[in-house]
Amino acid sequence: MRIRGAVWIVAVAWLSSMTVQSRPAGGQEIVKGQPSEDTAIRTVLDAQVAAWNRGDIPAFMATYEDSPETTFVGASSVNKGFQPILERYQKSYANKEQMGMLTFKDLSVRLLPASNGVIEYAVVTGKFHLDRTAKGLATKDDGIFSLVWHKGPGGWKILLDHTA
Amino acid sequence: MRIRGAVWIVAVAWLSSMTVQSRPAGGQEIVKGQPSEDTAIRTVLDAQVAAWNRGDIPAFMATYEDSPETTFVGASSVNKGFQPILERYQKSYANKEQMGMLTFKDLSVRLLPASNGVIEYAVVTGKFHLDRTAKGLATKDDGIFSLVWHKGPGGWKILLDHTA
Repeated sequence: MRIRGAVWIVAVAWLSSMTVQSRPAGGQEIVKGQPSEDTAIRTVLDAQVAAWNRGDIPAFMATYEDSPETTFVGASSVNKGFQPILERYQKSYANKEQMGMLTFKDLSVRLLPASNGVIEYAVVTGKFHLDRTAKGLATKDDGIFSLVWHKGPGGWKILLDHTA
Repeated sequence: MRIRGAVWIVAVAWLSSMTVQSRPAGGQEIVKGQPSEDTAIRTVLDAQVAAWNRGDIPAFMATYEDSPETTFVGASSVNKGFQPILERYQKSYANKEQMGMLTFKDLSVRLLPASNGVIEYAVVTGKFHLDRTAKGLATKDDGIFSLVWHKGPGGWKILLDHTA
């Protein structure tokens, strides 16, 4: 009985370790001192603004998911695909003067945890303002946007941008 | 040794059953013959249109998450909270004539699975049209929308509506 008892203890201990290890399988651990997901998204938004303000549309677009499913909803049309969205930006803002200086305000980040607590999606709402000396095809200097974000292997990226 | 071996077999069998049982904890099973999540969302959209077209704003709003975090982004403002959004609809569309007949077109449903495959979020884009004989505070008869959906205990509900 003593041997069987010992085997059970080993088995239960092994089981416990498996259970603990299996929990973060689809997930992640929250490590104190690491920036929160909220901060991580705001950091990407800051990088996006910085890229825009140096006239670098490809770097600005690096904050979008490089997927044919990535969607830009404008005032009058829905545009699908990373590459078409990039080309649309380049056509609408033909040079650095037309891009101008971008600022965001009233930013609100809402994390969307799954029922197991893992955060892989988020939504952001806010307002944009462009301060610029020239206008091209894109004529609006102010607007409201909502962004849907996905945290994948490359970090937080935008999968849907609705700006109107 | 034979007894210890038997105990190990029992322990391993128990462990295996635990592992199998623990997998669907945060998840769900896909049962053949059940409507897909895509279809489930389109069914809610159909119910939403039907509620609107019989002039029933509370039933229309039942497709939104009843949460202070639920967000409506309009052409010029961001509005938070289920109750304020409901009251905004009731003010903007004061009666059945102002609500008119709602139709959706160009609907696109994109499911957003977590990395463990479980689908609890989705985005929908589309266009709306109102056919009506009277207008109140809301003057637009046509527009584009993007909706962010969450599948919770009450089924698929809208957590963010951006209509402009």
